Amino acid sequence: MLENINSPKDLKKLKQNELGPLCDEIREELIKTISNNGGHLASNLGTVELTVALHRCFNSPKDKIIFDVGHQCYTHKILTGRREEFSTIRTEGGLSGFTRPSESEHDVFVSGHSSTSISAALGLTVANYLKNDDGYVIAIIGDGALTGGLAYEALNNASSFKGKLIVVLNDNKMSISKNVGAMSRHLAVIRSRPSYLRFKIGLDGVLSKIPLIGKPIANMLRWSKTRLKNLLYNSTIFEKMGFAYLGPVDGHDINVLENCFEMAKTTRRPPLIHICTVKGKGYSYAEQTPQDYHGVSSGMDIDTGECAPSANSFSFEFGKDMCELAKENDKVCAITAAMCEGVGLTEFSKQFPKRFFDVGIAEEHAVTFCSGLSKGGYIPVLAVYSSFLQRGYDQLIHDVAIQDLPCVICVDRAGFVGEDGETHQGIFDVPYLNSVPKTTVYSPCCYAGLKSDLKKTMSAKNGLQVVRYPRGKQPYIPEKYILDYDADYQVFGNNKDVAIITYGRVSAYALSAKDKLSVEGVNVDVIILNRIRPIPEEAISDAMDRQNIFIFEEGSKYGGVAERFSSILMTKGYKGNVNITAVEEEFVPQSSVDNALKKYNLDTDGIYNTVKSFLKGNNK
Amino acid sequence: MLENINSPKDLKKLKQNELGPLCDEIREELIKTISNNGGHLASNLGTVELTVALHRCFNSPKDKIIFDVGHQCYTHKILTGRREEFSTIRTEGGLSGFTRPSESEHDVFVSGHSSTSISAALGLTVANYLKNDDGYVIAIIGDGALTGGLAYEALNNASSFKGKLIVVLNDNKMSISKNVGAMSRHLAVIRSRPSYLRFKIGLDGVLSKIPLIGKPIANMLRWSKTRLKNLLYNSTIFEKMGFAYLGPVDGHDINVLENCFEMAKTTRRPPLIHICTVKGKGYSYAEQTPQDYHGVSSGMDIDTGECAPSANSFSFEFGKDMCELAKENDKVCAITAAMCEGVGLTEFSKQFPKRFFDVGIAEEHAVTFCSGLSKGGYIPVLAVYSSFLQRGYDQLIHDVAIQDLPCVICVDRAGFVGEDGETHQGIFDVPYLNSVPKTTVYSPCCYAGLKSDLKKTMSAKNGLQVVRYPRGKQPYIPEKYILDYDADYQVFGNNKDVAIITYGRVSAYALSAKDKLSVEGVNVDVIILNRIRPIPEEAISDAMDRQNIFIFEEGSKYGGVAERFSSILMTKGYKGNVNITAVEEEFVPQSSVDNALKKYNLDTDGIYNTVKSFLKGNNK
Repeated sequence: MLENINSPKDLKKLKQNELGPLCDEIREELIKTISNNGGHLASNLGTVELTVALHRCFNSPKDKIIFDVGHQCYTHKILTGRREEFSTIRTEGGLSGFTRPSESEHDVFVSGHSSTSISAALGLTVANYLKNDDGYVIAIIGDGALTGGLAYEALNNASSFKGKLIVVLNDNKMSISKNVGAMSRHLAVIRSRPSYLRFKIGLDGVLSKIPLIGKPIANMLRWSKTRLKNLLYNSTIFEKMGFAYLGPVDGHDINVLENCFEMAKTTRRPPLIHICTVKGKGYSYAEQTPQDYHGVSSGMDIDTGECAPSANSFSFEFGKDMCELAKENDKVCAITAAMCEGVGLTEFSKQFPKRFFDVGIAEEHAVTFCSGLSKGGYIPVLAVYSSFLQRGYDQLIHDVAIQDLPCVICVDRAGFVGEDGETHQGIFDVPYLNSVPKTTVYSPCCYAGLKSDLKKTMSAKNGLQVVRYPRGKQPYIPEKYILDYDADYQVFGNNKDVAIITYGRVSAYALSAKDKLSVEGVNVDVIILNRIRPIPEEAISDAMDRQNIFIFEEGSKYGGVAERFSSILMTKGYKGNVNITAVEEEFVPQSSVDNALKKYNLDTDGIYNTVKSFLKGNNK
Repeated sequence: MLENINSPKDLKKLKQNELGPLCDEIREELIKTISNNGGHLASNLGTVELTVALHRCFNSPKDKIIFDVGHQCYTHKILTGRREEFSTIRTEGGLSGFTRPSESEHDVFVSGHSSTSISAALGLTVANYLKNDDGYVIAIIGDGALTGGLAYEALNNASSFKGKLIVVLNDNKMSISKNVGAMSRHLAVIRSRPSYLRFKIGLDGVLSKIPLIGKPIANMLRWSKTRLKNLLYNSTIFEKMGFAYLGPVDGHDINVLENCFEMAKTTRRPPLIHICTVKGKGYSYAEQTPQDYHGVSSGMDIDTGECAPSANSFSFEFGKDMCELAKENDKVCAITAAMCEGVGLTEFSKQFPKRFFDVGIAEEHAVTFCSGLSKGGYIPVLAVYSSFLQRGYDQLIHDVAIQDLPCVICVDRAGFVGEDGETHQGIFDVPYLNSVPKTTVYSPCCYAGLKSDLKKTMSAKNGLQVVRYPRGKQPYIPEKYILDYDADYQVFGNNKDVAIITYGRVSAYALSAKDKLSVEGVNVDVIILNRIRPIPEEAISDAMDRQNIFIFEEGSKYGGVAERFSSILMTKGYKGNVNITAVEEEFVPQSSVDNALKKYNLDTDGIYNTVKSFLKGNNK
């Protein structure tokens, strides 16, 4: 049946009894493709019926459907003319795992980060209102994303402006792990009420307007005034925030969902539809432990549900180190913004439940909360992805750095992240952390360096202390190079004239490139920075005497280490040549990490070629 | 009486009937000092009784009192041993207008930005709990600050962890202007209920624990079950967020406040005390139009309430330009995060109410909302202070730049801001905007340049478009220098060997320094950058041929224009000398703007001396 669905229009022609089988086909497609390519499995399985119902009740692209985070948009892609390319999802040059306007007119915004949908939808709603466009704008947001302050700021604002905004709350009780916080408990209270299907009205004058579709509405009309009053007694946060609350409803019953969406078109206040879904629905392994199937890597065995055993990684090593260090020092606390598994803290959370804090998808709060813990004499260690910490920039300055409170931030996924693409690349943390005065940043190139740096930051007495490390495992470092994990920087070779300067993961490729160059008789030194902020004075002195310096940086050039290093050399009177390789005016698209390193000349061959051709050019 | 209060202990000795006169004395002191020094008048007048009651019921510094934003902490400073230095508030070397731990053990955190208090307090509460410290941690937050997502993230999290946290909601119906949003309307509903003094209990098992203090509690015990049920019917958002809600109570009745705080010590859930205060209380002019007395400049006439007429300023000119441009183009919209007056949009909001959006103290949402407006075909212009836009960094990247949606951000208070000190200095916007790919940033040096740049950014077809300008009025530019407002950069002089490069306000001082140097026979050119990102190619080419380059930057050196400019010169093979003057590893303390410019060698004399001594040194 799926073969005949090439646009939402085709979907509208189907009869109700054809929708169940269609959803089965979609799930099959999802499981097949995601098990192969990797991707967000559980969340997409949970939103199949929701997406079908949305595209039947609304007219995309006139009506704008905006998926929060966007990781649950796979069914949407299949239904909006991208079925045939679906097998390319998350591959280089293929479909994105998130919404991308460049792919389709049905994708409204670029998505990737959490809690943005209501804000973006509200802006679009207001624009529609101003220009008399009567299209609906529908924001689909999960209960996890609702823990983010940005979502609240938008909810608070939504009923202030006019327009046709609809919010769908997809409540699956989960962020990536189990959802946390008071809002989550509030949703649980609502869900647990006896009348599972409830439509709240009263204030909204809905009664007179609603069309008679299906049984639920007929039932509703029979409700007595007392019953209504009783419902108001149980009123929700959303009504207090100015919304017309509809729900909770079964998010896997297309008929009910469609009735609900039609009703939502009739409310006077902006409607918020609370639907309950099961994360991983229809695939037993994912239903049982959805957190294990939130994001799966490629090569999952469909029959057994087994994923490739997660290789060791910086995140895993970080988790191990944290357990060890917390055992030695009872002041060590770990904080995560809803990324317990991702950052490697699962074991810590079991061993030290009192000193483990999952604060929700709330990076701003996570940072300020750390400053409070620090003030109270503890050693807060916040582990967070590079691109998500962008949310905490002001708090890093205002609540940590200005206060000079010792806080440790462990920046995971620093550098290229691969298949998640533009929105998740960790290429800005060096620039934004560089800008914060009195900050110390380490960028180790291997596990042992990570542990050593972690210890150093934990024992620091003031200020923002950062350790950043890439996604995945440590790169291969030729055995002959013995790393001094405790050093702030290290020089390999004694050429004294040409030096490659780099840090983090690229250090390994620089050493390999050095070997490859030496085979051809080109001798270069490699200076590996372990501490990148402040740049070690001695590393600068060492560079001053050299004629040619090559700096390689897995990150943005603007405000990065290369820019600072070269500026310092300039003001110190350096008269040699500096060549910089880094990411310039662009956002890095999806591809494997290895291919991204290759593309930006940051792998062994790239470094080798860059150095060789520059030296050749200069010797002409 | 005030003379004898040197610490909170002295306050506790006073009888209830002595407190009224004490508050009068405090208000007198506040009005006298603020009218002289400038500062936050209305908010401090509104929190006199609150602060007195807090220091009588709690034991600071064992109990930690944390003021959100901190602009309302003046009474707290007077009562905690800083009465005699109070006349130095907001002056160079004097007391800060916000809380500063370096000043007193009674100031717990550095404050300045909004909505941080509950997060910081929660971290401290958890630390206390872990180390068995039985001190209370009290966060005082205004209804305005409650529109910020960070406050919500913390509220959502607060009941998840154990400890003695108390939240006091100081509800004066205002941000700086009238408060906006659904939460604000919810508070209005609560305030309007007949039983003004209400203590909610029920779930918290408070009944058995509360001591019998005062009449309100006796009354409460008489409440019937029905009454309690009725109250639950009217339950608040805060109870749904896991708090024990107490209130609303009259925030100017010390007796009631004290009873309330004592009761708050007995609740099982973290208590949230809702107090209602009048902004500007006790000073009739400020009570009538509190928005005009939120922040007053020095030299207010106490008898007439007249402040020095606000001189023209970049903000004022921006507001004028916006009205003009919105008249010409009906797509132009203005957005503010609760700073309508501050950024100069009052007149715009009157003339174009449909295209004016105050989204609350919600910079994250403000940016993402803009991306929605832009997607809908409008030209959003967000006017925001440099230091507050730090909150929107992730949204600038994720929701504007990656999407390549044309959005105009007008960064006000860029550069030194004067008396507000460290937390408000606009010295990071250049670094953090520099790091965002595909971004255009203008930094005009005069009003006409501002208007020209504003037009340019409004007509841009994609990406993040920024115009940044300083606090206050345009600096004096010697008449003989004719500025080309439309040019991306401009060279004054034809020395060809020595150039001063700068942008924004400092341009004027650079031209004056040029004149001063020429008197002594030292000829230098001045290159004024109007567009600072990307740096105009021709400006770089122009610099390449010179032997000596001086870059002056009113902002952070790290990631700034000077660093980038010199790095580009370096990679292009420049072999001359570069000298950089900017703010290095520090946060800029309070002082007048002029003194800050002087301190960092960015005024005429500073530039003159820097150039002269460098050239002298190099010619030796």
